[in-house]
Amino acid sequence: MKRRITLFSGQFADLSIQEFAAKAADWGYDGVELACWGQHLNVPRMIRDPSYAKQVRAILDDAGLSCSVISSHLVSQAVCDLIDDRHRRILPPSIWGDGEPEGVRRRAEERMKDTARAAAEFGADTVVGFTGSSIFHFFNGWPPVPAELVEDGYADFAARWSRILDAFDQYGVRFAFEAMPGEIGYDAQTIKRAFDAIGGRPSFGLNFDPTHLHWQLLDEPAFVREFGDRIFHVHCKDARRRLDGRRSVLASHLPGGHLGRGWDFVSVGHGDVPFEEIIRSLDAVGYAGPLSVEWEDSQMDREAGAAEAVGYLRRLGFDQPSASWSSSFATPE
Amino acid sequence: MKRRITLFSGQFADLSIQEFAAKAADWGYDGVELACWGQHLNVPRMIRDPSYAKQVRAILDDAGLSCSVISSHLVSQAVCDLIDDRHRRILPPSIWGDGEPEGVRRRAEERMKDTARAAAEFGADTVVGFTGSSIFHFFNGWPPVPAELVEDGYADFAARWSRILDAFDQYGVRFAFEAMPGEIGYDAQTIKRAFDAIGGRPSFGLNFDPTHLHWQLLDEPAFVREFGDRIFHVHCKDARRRLDGRRSVLASHLPGGHLGRGWDFVSVGHGDVPFEEIIRSLDAVGYAGPLSVEWEDSQMDREAGAAEAVGYLRRLGFDQPSASWSSSFATPE
Amino acid sequence: MKRRITLFSGQFADLSIQEFAAKAADWGYDGVELACWGQHLNVPRMIRDPSYAKQVRAILDDAGLSCSVISSHLVSQAVCDLIDDRHRRILPPSIWGDGEPEGVRRRAEERMKDTARAAAEFGADTVVGFTGSSIFHFFNGWPPVPAELVEDGYADFAARWSRILDAFDQYGVRFAFEAMPGEIGYDAQTIKRAFDAIGGRPSFGLNFDPTHLHWQLLDEPAFVREFGDRIFHVHCKDARRRLDGRRSVLASHLPGGHLGRGWDFVSVGHGDVPFEEIIRSLDAVGYAGPLSVEWEDSQMDREAGAAEAVGYLRRLGFDQPSASWSSSFATPE
Amino acid sequence: MKRRITLFSGQFADLSIQEFAAKAADWGYDGVELACWGQHLNVPRMIRDPSYAKQVRAILDDAGLSCSVISSHLVSQAVCDLIDDRHRRILPPSIWGDGEPEGVRRRAEERMKDTARAAAEFGADTVVGFTGSSIFHFFNGWPPVPAELVEDGYADFAARWSRILDAFDQYGVRFAFEAMPGEIGYDAQTIKRAFDAIGGRPSFGLNFDPTHLHWQLLDEPAFVREFGDRIFHVHCKDARRRLDGRRSVLASHLPGGHLGRGWDFVSVGHGDVPFEEIIRSLDAVGYAGPLSVEWEDSQMDREAGAAEAVGYLRRLGFDQPSASWSSSFATPE
Amino acid sequence: MKRRITLFSGQFADLSIQEFAAKAADWGYDGVELACWGQHLNVPRMIRDPSYAKQVRAILDDAGLSCSVISSHLVSQAVCDLIDDRHRRILPPSIWGDGEPEGVRRRAEERMKDTARAAAEFGADTVVGFTGSSIFHFFNGWPPVPAELVEDGYADFAARWSRILDAFDQYGVRFAFEAMPGEIGYDAQTIKRAFDAIGGRPSFGLNFDPTHLHWQLLDEPAFVREFGDRIFHVHCKDARRRLDGRRSVLASHLPGGHLGRGWDFVSVGHGDVPFEEIIRSLDAVGYAGPLSVEWEDSQMDREAGAAEAVGYLRRLGFDQPSASWSSSFATPE
Amino acid sequence: MKRRITLFSGQFADLSIQEFAAKAADWGYDGVELACWGQHLNVPRMIRDPSYAKQVRAILDDAGLSCSVISSHLVSQAVCDLIDDRHRRILPPSIWGDGEPEGVRRRAEERMKDTARAAAEFGADTVVGFTGSSIFHFFNGWPPVPAELVEDGYADFAARWSRILDAFDQYGVRFAFEAMPGEIGYDAQTIKRAFDAIGGRPSFGLNFDPTHLHWQLLDEPAFVREFGDRIFHVHCKDARRRLDGRRSVLASHLPGGHLGRGWDFVSVGHGDVPFEEIIRSLDAVGYAGPLSVEWEDSQMDREAGAAEAVGYLRRLGFDQPSASWSSSFATPE
Repeated sequence: MKRRITLFSGQFADLSIQEFAAKAADWGYDGVELACWGQHLNVPRMIRDPSYAKQVRAILDDAGLSCSVISSHLVSQAVCDLIDDRHRRILPPSIWGDGEPEGVRRRAEERMKDTARAAAEFGADTVVGFTGSSIFHFFNGWPPVPAELVEDGYADFAARWSRILDAFDQYGVRFAFEAMPGEIGYDAQTIKRAFDAIGGRPSFGLNFDPTHLHWQLLDEPAFVREFGDRIFHVHCKDARRRLDGRRSVLASHLPGGHLGRGWDFVSVGHGDVPFEEIIRSLDAVGYAGPLSVEWEDSQMDREAGAAEAVGYLRRLGFDQPSASWSSSFATPE
Repeated sequence: MKRRITLFSGQFADLSIQEFAAKAADWGYDGVELACWGQHLNVPRMIRDPSYAKQVRAILDDAGLSCSVISSHLVSQAVCDLIDDRHRRILPPSIWGDGEPEGVRRRAEERMKDTARAAAEFGADTVVGFTGSSIFHFFNGWPPVPAELVEDGYADFAARWSRILDAFDQYGVRFAFEAMPGEIGYDAQTIKRAFDAIGGRPSFGLNFDPTHLHWQLLDEPAFVREFGDRIFHVHCKDARRRLDGRRSVLASHLPGGHLGRGWDFVSVGHGDVPFEEIIRSLDAVGYAGPLSVEWEDSQMDREAGAAEAVGYLRRLGFDQPSASWSSSFATPE
Repeated sequence: MKRRITLFSGQFADLSIQEFAAKAADWGYDGVELACWGQHLNVPRMIRDPSYAKQVRAILDDAGLSCSVISSHLVSQAVCDLIDDRHRRILPPSIWGDGEPEGVRRRAEERMKDTARAAAEFGADTVVGFTGSSIFHFFNGWPPVPAELVEDGYADFAARWSRILDAFDQYGVRFAFEAMPGEIGYDAQTIKRAFDAIGGRPSFGLNFDPTHLHWQLLDEPAFVREFGDRIFHVHCKDARRRLDGRRSVLASHLPGGHLGRGWDFVSVGHGDVPFEEIIRSLDAVGYAGPLSVEWEDSQMDREAGAAEAVGYLRRLGFDQPSASWSSSFATPE
Repeated sequence: MKRRITLFSGQFADLSIQEFAAKAADWGYDGVELACWGQHLNVPRMIRDPSYAKQVRAILDDAGLSCSVISSHLVSQAVCDLIDDRHRRILPPSIWGDGEPEGVRRRAEERMKDTARAAAEFGADTVVGFTGSSIFHFFNGWPPVPAELVEDGYADFAARWSRILDAFDQYGVRFAFEAMPGEIGYDAQTIKRAFDAIGGRPSFGLNFDPTHLHWQLLDEPAFVREFGDRIFHVHCKDARRRLDGRRSVLASHLPGGHLGRGWDFVSVGHGDVPFEEIIRSLDAVGYAGPLSVEWEDSQMDREAGAAEAVGYLRRLGFDQPSASWSSSFATPE
Repeated sequence: MKRRITLFSGQFADLSIQEFAAKAADWGYDGVELACWGQHLNVPRMIRDPSYAKQVRAILDDAGLSCSVISSHLVSQAVCDLIDDRHRRILPPSIWGDGEPEGVRRRAEERMKDTARAAAEFGADTVVGFTGSSIFHFFNGWPPVPAELVEDGYADFAARWSRILDAFDQYGVRFAFEAMPGEIGYDAQTIKRAFDAIGGRPSFGLNFDPTHLHWQLLDEPAFVREFGDRIFHVHCKDARRRLDGRRSVLASHLPGGHLGRGWDFVSVGHGDVPFEEIIRSLDAVGYAGPLSVEWEDSQMDREAGAAEAVGYLRRLGFDQPSASWSSSFATPE
Repeated sequence: MKRRITLFSGQFADLSIQEFAAKAADWGYDGVELACWGQHLNVPRMIRDPSYAKQVRAILDDAGLSCSVISSHLVSQAVCDLIDDRHRRILPPSIWGDGEPEGVRRRAEERMKDTARAAAEFGADTVVGFTGSSIFHFFNGWPPVPAELVEDGYADFAARWSRILDAFDQYGVRFAFEAMPGEIGYDAQTIKRAFDAIGGRPSFGLNFDPTHLHWQLLDEPAFVREFGDRIFHVHCKDARRRLDGRRSVLASHLPGGHLGRGWDFVSVGHGDVPFEEIIRSLDAVGYAGPLSVEWEDSQMDREAGAAEAVGYLRRLGFDQPSASWSSSFATPE
């Protein structure tokens, strides 16, 4: 059985679902991961309109595409964050409201509960998203960071997300956290701390996206081996480090695509992320879900890139052997 | 002429100046960089007490120590920062006040002006410190960061520090900005942007501390060559990268000295910072100031470390040649 | 003239020759290297049955496949080895007998002589195989290894293989030794010592398999340059080093395909072996034989892999130029 | 709009233009860069024969090939060089004459002026070539090199090429200097010095060929960022470093293709030159010209190589995006 | 409190204890680790002669040297090994006997029980040694190694050493296993397997010797972090990798000191072993025992080396801090 | 026996021999290598003045310094070189004469013969120097270099130096050629070619100076192993590579000490040259001569550097062992 390769719709959310599905099918994808924004999956409508799930399914079915995962990267970010003007620009007005930070966080929390319910209605078993963090910016260590302030940040995360996960449990849906700098967990050590803070709840796992580890100079396959049983979903996105002693790993407040950055996202297969070793590791730890292409490259046309990515991954998603290659080393007479 | 090697008093601010000076002299330092906190230089007293400067000078003179640089790392950090509980713990009560952020920032700004005056009273020509930044935490790029928000951050910096630098100009003192992650400038590109924002004022230069570049994977000597004429002062502090694919360059919310961190400060000569190449580069760009040891190592006794550091740097601060080694390649007859 | 690309049958010895030949031809191979075990080449039958050679040739001819090389990796290993239960599992009962070590070694030796004769009967000019070694396990140096014990091991090898090579000379067939850890030679220095021990006999050369050098951290193309005139045959097998400070180059007693190993065999084109540089070097030293794919990958289906490998090598087996690219740099008028 | 990919005719100058054009078109090239030697562009004839330009254009048009660049690598080399027997072998007899060095240099200079005129006649806007250098061999530093001797070399270059560039300006044609060891500029620092020597004339820019930087261990994309606005043309040629501690970067007086060299030219896509990063950098600095394949590989048939190279570059010459991938991150309701 | 630095007597066992102790004291060592061979600690005599322990202690006391660790590297090796002529040369005749392998192993086992008793008599709490292994030579994977054969090897180890450890428990002494290639455990994974096989008995821990990890390309400090609580003792020995593509990591059957080897032992401070990072890690995991210099360098005089090593380690065994360096960052007023 | 450490006088040739000898002795050197220029060894005078040798010896003896090696780096360079203004500046007027190239070369050749005689008179057994080369500048490969032109260069070298070596043989003195870029041999391959050209004469060997290999990215210890029996003398000079992608290995026509260079000479112990591995290799190949410090560092005072260098090398010139460290691994009873 070959691995399923899906396309995340987030970077195509300006297209109608129909248009997006037609393209994805045409490029050869097996399924999609639908974003809960733009023209795509509308969570409030999913809850209030009993026919909506079927309408969306019909579109995907017509294109021959599966979908078991939906994504809420925008709203979920606001659950624990210190809120500022960047959030206003990506949140729906009903979540932003008057922008008072705690109000925004509380409304985002409620919407995440609704998203769990929407996933269930739609027949998806996994919601992908972020957590936000009230303490990420402490990482640089100055002013000195007393241990209790870090503890407070994890407690804040645990309190807010425990309430959300109660809803996920109620609807039988899992949350796949995309760990990255900016979130409550961004590497093995902080992710473990987050898991511990939340008591190791089975409904809280990971959306493995290697690029966020890559620019931290972390070993992506080692991460897969360590967290194998907590990986609920995988994003295939690529990144390229351009560290030459002049370009900081912190990206110098420069936008994606600027060559002054020390690293950047690039189309799958155009970067340094060791996909073959990652996929072999996913095989080894028993991950059976899809490889979902999240397409981000500031120097390439998105349609050219998405079309090319599926073929690249297809070549690496080879079949497992049925027997050891040394099994025929014996000589009958 | 050998290079002057001085000791920064910030990590010894619990000792009286007398005690600190006696130790520094005993270890072999030529002078000190006095911190404006703890038991050391008191800025308000310097302004209100005409005899204070002489008292402090007398202590240093008795120990045979020079001092042309004072440091204000704690208060200066608050000038542009988003203020939180970490600042409360390092700021004097008179600056913290009720903790309302803009009030804290404004009082910190006034204190920096006073620090310029205090430097002049004391006979120091340079104040070392930070700038703070209202936008550093945007570096990770999520939620998406519109260009104008970054612009706003530099404008905020420029407005606040222009007022402070007016005071520095008035008193004939220079501000040496210690660029590092957390500040308005933290690598060559963001430092240039800060210089541009402030109009290239001659009283605003750099306190070069290689460790802050080190964990960003930047080339420290290249930085010296690029910013040679803007280096007002140099901190000799060492750092060790422990990047092994499991430890993030972002340090995982772990305190100094924890082996889970991807990097750490260590005593001068115990890390990876290429001091010989840095000092050769400082020679080449004409830097004539002291090398000031800022001692930070969470696994070593500070007195053992400070005593050892001066000898290490002394060996690298060798004399320049008076002629080329090839100048005697000629054969008279 | 393009380079011939062949497929080694050892890992497919559970298939009948017909089935194997049909697949190899279908995947695009030019020929095969037949294993002397499993369903493939039967040495005793080749000697006793005058029609057998023709039958096998007919099968290959029908599939359009050449075959000038046969392989005896299982029996040859027993010639010099300390015999244990591992040998029992791969040797034919007639060689194993009662398992008494010296008896096993002697019977293996006789079979190797027969294999030379079988090759001649079949019309193959080269037999590929191992040597075994009574001293390989001394490599780690403890208990201390007196020089004479190592000498004894090479003498033992020379005595046994000289007798075998007499038979090879008699039948006009060459033996291509696949040097690897476990054998009397496993790197340039030990291979030279083996050549010296055996007096540099022209019928004893190498089956170059880069993977065995790879995990010893050796430079494969340098090896080709050094032993160019002794390379009788080439195995194209790939390997991937996974050395990350946690995984030993010695593979930790873990089976192939286990991610805890510090290295592993992988399908050709999926590892780190520098095939282009190797093939360019083989061109340069004048190697004119086939590139024989030995397929070993514990994480990939063998048929998918073998089918893909031939195309990968085909792209690297490009034609040599007929003239220098700078030969048209001249201007007539 | 896709990037134009052209083929340089220099390595095919033994073929007639017709034959060369037919092959280039067949392999999929968009255009050609014609060499001013061999069977290709004849400068004297272009000046004396008013119909010659049309004849050549007709041949290219028939093959569907564009041509805006012509090349004069042979004659241009002689302008500043110390002349020796190597020059005799590549120069037309009318330039070589009696071989007296200054006479050769002067005649080469005149021919370069004619080449500018020929380019204009033919409708090409750029001439590619070298400069030669009277001082390159001083690079090794022994006997000691007084600064004024280096100055003299740049002055000599400036005097000779200023006269040539007057002709280029007159005919509205640009000269694209292919900087490499052997020329007046061979890295960023010496190129800047050459630009300065010649007063930054706008008609004197660069033909960027990454291989010449490669074996000097220079960062090719960094070079593109630094000289972006001075790049008039790009040669795509590949190189492979074989530095293993035994092979010198200086190539040991060995011919191309010899494995003892520390580096060598290889067919595009078979070396270490980071073409994707280079092309992304060329996009970023706004280079809009063609990628011209200069085919040099001493171990590969030129036709196989040239046919393969165009496809390799085509895959990297992807379209730029019309909008940021994060532009659809917003949720309407 | 400074770390204790001791000298292992094994490489000086041709000297009398008196002579050895005098030298060790003179070079500045704090104590010794006595070898149970040569002129040094005699196990049978310790058991039969009630005054022997006091005599030895008196010699050490006179020299001002402590001793809490004794070593049995020779006999312990024979417990699980396949016995051959190498063992004969290092075993006492009473253990070797007639050389019949199982008899040798059994007598070695008994002697190890006696060694535990001798340690108790002498007042040492730790015995350092090896385990031997019946399966180490399987590591290269050929002939194919069925999983059950590896299991058998661990079971054999567990059976033999459980009996020995019963004696250790009886006498209240610990066994510190020096894991290295050749033993039942030689890297993290095989050591864990050995610990598991033996049921995690508290009296079986490690003698950490980084050199054995070094040539396997393992990360020594990572090992310390992983096995911190199982490290009973530490050997400071250094090694130098000479991997240049021509020299195998397997050492090519060459003796120590031969430059053809891919690695070699060298005097402490002359190799690549990261001692500072190791010692910082030992501090962090709470290891409080001595650093015991095991001196091995085939190119240096042993007395020059041992004398130099203690000073090298002394400089790295610095005191821990009593408070964080940031603890004085606060400004009273 | 410790290794002798000497100081080359070339960089101190402006001092009188007395002054130089006094300093060298004071810094701790065992002997000197005298330059045949400046204030030091005068070859014509050595030949015409029978008392001169004794006078010089007396000065050295008074200082307790040995001298068995003299150096002629300036004149020897002219023997094969294309002569230009750089030579004029370092040659004595009697050699330069009217500057006509062949005349200069011939007079340099005669002086080298006299230098052999002067060495014999003085009691030195070795003359160190260069060869020059008429073809070094061909190394960059453009214009194309026909093989016969390279052959011509080696033949020219062989002709001129054969005549010189006849004189060396006559006087029983050896010539130690300092191979470096600019000479007829500059790496292993070109040196072998030079040896072959000159018929492997025993009086022509090497002055091993690792810095010249260093910037070619060659493995210095590998070179020692390869040419062990041809090393007549060793220069200890250090170098530092500063290759960062912006600085060429070819040094950009910049003078020593300029930070824009890709490499530079530095004082011994301040660069990257692996002296310990080199000295261990010299021990292994049986080199018994002195280590001669050639001091060159454009950023350090020469006296500080020369004083420091002897101590650095002294620490690496340790004694060889008298027995293997494993020789006491045996247990008597």
